[in-house]
Amino acid sequence: MDRRPSAAPAATEAKDALVLFMPSGRRGRFPLGTPLLDAARALGVYVESVCGGRGLCGRCQVEIAEGAFAKHGITSRAANLSPAEETEAPYRRRGVLPPARRLSCAGRVLGDLVIDVPGEVAVNRQIVRKRAETRTIAADPATRLVTVSVKPPDMEHPLGDADRLVAAIEATGEWRGVWLDPPLLTEVQRVLRAGDWTVTAAVHQDIARPQVIALWPGQHTALFGVAFDIGSTTIAGHLVDLASGRTVASAGTTNPQIRFGEDLMSRISYLMLNPDDRGALTEAVRGAIGALITRLCAQADIPPEEVLEAVFVGNPVMHHLFLGIDPQELGQAPFALAVSGALRLAARELGIAIHPGGRAYILPCIAGHVGADAAAVALAEGPQHHAEITLVVDVGTNAEILLGNRDRVLAASSPTGPAFEGAQITAGQRAAPGAIERVRIDPATLEPRFKVIGADAWSDDPGFGAGIETVGVTGICGSGIIEVVAEMFLAGIIGADGLIDAGLAARSPRIETDGRTARYRLWDGAVPVAVTQTDIRAIQLAKGALYAGARLLMDRLGVERVERIKLAGAFGSYIDPKYAMVLGLIPDCRLDRVSAIGNAAGTGARMALVSRAHRAEVEALVRRVENGRDPFPELAAAVTLPERRETEGRRRPGRRRGG
Amino acid sequence: MDRRPSAAPAATEAKDALVLFMPSGRRGRFPLGTPLLDAARALGVYVESVCGGRGLCGRCQVEIAEGAFAKHGITSRAANLSPAEETEAPYRRRGVLPPARRLSCAGRVLGDLVIDVPGEVAVNRQIVRKRAETRTIAADPATRLVTVSVKPPDMEHPLGDADRLVAAIEATGEWRGVWLDPPLLTEVQRVLRAGDWTVTAAVHQDIARPQVIALWPGQHTALFGVAFDIGSTTIAGHLVDLASGRTVASAGTTNPQIRFGEDLMSRISYLMLNPDDRGALTEAVRGAIGALITRLCAQADIPPEEVLEAVFVGNPVMHHLFLGIDPQELGQAPFALAVSGALRLAARELGIAIHPGGRAYILPCIAGHVGADAAAVALAEGPQHHAEITLVVDVGTNAEILLGNRDRVLAASSPTGPAFEGAQITAGQRAAPGAIERVRIDPATLEPRFKVIGADAWSDDPGFGAGIETVGVTGICGSGIIEVVAEMFLAGIIGADGLIDAGLAARSPRIETDGRTARYRLWDGAVPVAVTQTDIRAIQLAKGALYAGARLLMDRLGVERVERIKLAGAFGSYIDPKYAMVLGLIPDCRLDRVSAIGNAAGTGARMALVSRAHRAEVEALVRRVENGRDPFPELAAAVTLPERRETEGRRRPGRRRGG
Repeated sequence: MDRRPSAAPAATEAKDALVLFMPSGRRGRFPLGTPLLDAARALGVYVESVCGGRGLCGRCQVEIAEGAFAKHGITSRAANLSPAEETEAPYRRRGVLPPARRLSCAGRVLGDLVIDVPGEVAVNRQIVRKRAETRTIAADPATRLVTVSVKPPDMEHPLGDADRLVAAIEATGEWRGVWLDPPLLTEVQRVLRAGDWTVTAAVHQDIARPQVIALWPGQHTALFGVAFDIGSTTIAGHLVDLASGRTVASAGTTNPQIRFGEDLMSRISYLMLNPDDRGALTEAVRGAIGALITRLCAQADIPPEEVLEAVFVGNPVMHHLFLGIDPQELGQAPFALAVSGALRLAARELGIAIHPGGRAYILPCIAGHVGADAAAVALAEGPQHHAEITLVVDVGTNAEILLGNRDRVLAASSPTGPAFEGAQITAGQRAAPGAIERVRIDPATLEPRFKVIGADAWSDDPGFGAGIETVGVTGICGSGIIEVVAEMFLAGIIGADGLIDAGLAARSPRIETDGRTARYRLWDGAVPVAVTQTDIRAIQLAKGALYAGARLLMDRLGVERVERIKLAGAFGSYIDPKYAMVLGLIPDCRLDRVSAIGNAAGTGARMALVSRAHRAEVEALVRRVENGRDPFPELAAAVTLPERRETEGRRRPGRRRGG
Repeated sequence: MDRRPSAAPAATEAKDALVLFMPSGRRGRFPLGTPLLDAARALGVYVESVCGGRGLCGRCQVEIAEGAFAKHGITSRAANLSPAEETEAPYRRRGVLPPARRLSCAGRVLGDLVIDVPGEVAVNRQIVRKRAETRTIAADPATRLVTVSVKPPDMEHPLGDADRLVAAIEATGEWRGVWLDPPLLTEVQRVLRAGDWTVTAAVHQDIARPQVIALWPGQHTALFGVAFDIGSTTIAGHLVDLASGRTVASAGTTNPQIRFGEDLMSRISYLMLNPDDRGALTEAVRGAIGALITRLCAQADIPPEEVLEAVFVGNPVMHHLFLGIDPQELGQAPFALAVSGALRLAARELGIAIHPGGRAYILPCIAGHVGADAAAVALAEGPQHHAEITLVVDVGTNAEILLGNRDRVLAASSPTGPAFEGAQITAGQRAAPGAIERVRIDPATLEPRFKVIGADAWSDDPGFGAGIETVGVTGICGSGIIEVVAEMFLAGIIGADGLIDAGLAARSPRIETDGRTARYRLWDGAVPVAVTQTDIRAIQLAKGALYAGARLLMDRLGVERVERIKLAGAFGSYIDPKYAMVLGLIPDCRLDRVSAIGNAAGTGARMALVSRAHRAEVEALVRRVENGRDPFPELAAAVTLPERRETEGRRRPGRRRGG
């Protein structure tokens, strides 16, 4: 069905297929016929299975988002997956396998697939795996539960209830200098008596003196945490069982700050014009996080009061706005952060509706343009863990870039803008059914063929007409625009200067010109799709920012090649590395050394959630910057788009740009 | 004028007079003609004077409350003070000496006086003096100011503003591990730039890690604290300059919780019937404290934002209600405190409107009946400082009692009830103009003579009729009821059993009987004043509670006599020790070893406000109880009134009572 040349050298056409697991973003190619459960295991995606894939437990449920590279959320029947098997029937009859789901042990790969691992079974072992991979660290969450027997009051020993509770906790020998979160002072009487002097205390041990932050009568075993990656466009959250380190639910939402501006600079500009609205931006993001917590807890069927810890990462602007800090300083040199170090706060100080005594941890920012999200990526997948020179690129509306190896790591941030996501493109749209996502151009005839999200066939296949009737062709998404521009370059339609060769209009009707500027007609349906010179300029600027960031770091590190590239984030999961390289989005590298690592920032946030050692590690990594020692000696090396540079009042000599 | 036999052996009638200074409660007898300023100095009461008493500076202003033992607040012209002198005239003309005030260097003692040292000049040296007296401790408030130059932001060193501020503070070498109070994170940018990178930080150093709690651009020198003694009936507050340790304003107010019950047990009973009203009691006391802070700051002409520290003491029920804790457990055995240890909180967690980053410190409670107020008395005037066996009695609606010496100290609390304050007495009233406050009874004739607050002459003086026209006789106050009952005993009207001898009705028309019970007629005016058998019973119960508390401690300590008695609180300032001893309120002691020490609980609170060493001292004192070591090994030794005992479900063997 997919007859295009494969980007992965090892893959043979029509004998294997790409499988992408959401929300982790992990992906790989698998021989046709591979059970989904095996594919998940091969990629380290945790799908619960008690029976070992024998169809006996019914737990390995997944949802299928039909079509290669289709985005998360499409749940129509999947033709690229084998039909329902007999083993699934009993679970359907018993109503425990909803219509939209399949057992991953029963479904086999017949073509490219996007698989949703549902929240309630997405108990992701990634963290455990990572811990085992990189170093051995015992699970050590910032908050632990301890059940103690407290001495009843006694007139001969007039110690207060709270003081006897503290004595009982200290008598375990685990902690010294324990104190109570002040709001508990009004609760301690009631809880001690309700538990008949046996209570469970949640002891938060990540501040100078261990603090009792929650108290339950008798025995209590539930202890959860949430981790959030606050992106400019998307907020992703995970609910984690802190006892096991397992992720028990995941959910995402659009960052509602988008109504104040699509990208970071437009939100800063908005605040310059409307300084009184800072609170509204802060409330917007906190409100979205609150709604996500509600959803995550509903998925896992736990009350939000069982969530005791929350971890947050985000770029510096998101970091500041979440904290209620004015981000305007981040919009101009010297890009001064209001606060860069890790923060430990009461969750209530941030208006986060978890347990009233819950704690919040915010990862450190590296520099004015390189935020806590980059620190989290470094914690999860950082080059400092490897001998080979590794480039980590996390592309969102902003790109976070890390380069180096265990000897030295550099970091930068590039404001790529939303062009890679289909915005600022004439026919651009978000990745959704109807969007052109793959494009090939015949260098001889200059004729295109393409593939649309939600339809199986390529545009030159006989079945294309039938398939396209349902979804139509509505525009072009980020991966499509990258491929079409790369193919236009490979076909000679645009030159090294990025200009469309208007002279080709004489050779093919696909090239049109009004004498001043030219365009390439990709599709002439109800919604025509064409690539204009302006579109190419937008992609050039975005790719220039991204490439320049990586190139700058390579120059500073003194390397000509990178040995490994890790593409983080949703963009990294959908992009075809070959075209990214053709277009110069990323430096040259062996294609089999390019991998998608999913939401690495989210993984880093979860690591800080389950382990104090990981918190210490990321703080030590970032602190070395402060002392001017490796790694991250030049983390403030931010690259700006040409437009931005011209409006800047102060410019430092030696700043570099790409283009 | 005052022709009664003096209680103080050294005093000679009509040659000296008693002068009482409020709000400190310090008092002493002085030869007639003594300038008030000299009297104040002799007693260690600080009245500001720049010129040394030569009438040149106009600063030594005081207010006169007319009449011996008149209560605080009466400001009519004082006949017991010399008339206004020529030196005062210029200040009157310039409007800087209000009509109600006198210069203390110009006014001379002509009779008993109560002097108000106004808030704005009551810069009380008591704390400084005490510190010098008992031990040498450098001023060491929990919060200190430090002015630092912060490095401007720099792209090569991407540390955040807050982090560079912390670095600058730590570079002083005074603190390590400094962190910012979270609400400052949104302020730090603006303040650093407003101060052009020079700022003053308030560093709170009384928690595990030093915390920046306030920040000002440039230089800032003002640093204040407030100390509160939360009594069942009265709340007293002091505003203290933390740099000098001086009290710059004092004010008091009625505890508005009185509308929920006059004494502690009635407030607890109210809460048993109206459990949902606990918040109302907490809001009432916090509201009154907020209003006092406003008044104190207005007196000293400073904004409340310059107040960074607040210290609170109170009995256990007041302590709990102030913190929002249910006090019902304190109303029944085993009188379990919800929390006994000292508490360090953000003031905002208590709704205290000082600087948003301000801190609160609450002294530890000793036991279920012996509160933070008793701990404060121990800190200020505790027997542990002396070799002689000292009894400290702080009588309010409850009496706090400390007994011992530097080897060992015991403490108890007795619910004396409000009888000593004139409540529960047939003709009782609060100490106010018109109240009988002194009484003598002729043992031969059984005829009384008495003195009324607001009138100079005794009732058998020729001038009495003229003087009494203004104020009238409206009832009898606490000191009056103590004296009349003691005189009735001395005159044989009541026997050792406390019964009025009805047979005396045949000898004097002052004794009336209806055959079942008898009463003593003290005054037959528009408002007749008589002492009934019920009144005597009420005083017996109250004095029984007070005496039994002291006696219990003497038995436990194994002493038959006390060598020194210190009477704290307003009651201690007004009561005549001789009559207190006749009535058995306090054990026998040489009269010249009985002294009034004013508001010792308030003094202890102020000591904890100005010095971390004092906080450590009071915590160590109280902590020894927990370990069962001296001092305070039996601090839960609470004595209850007979009525209370009969309603208690659980009674401990070996409990003692007096009566």
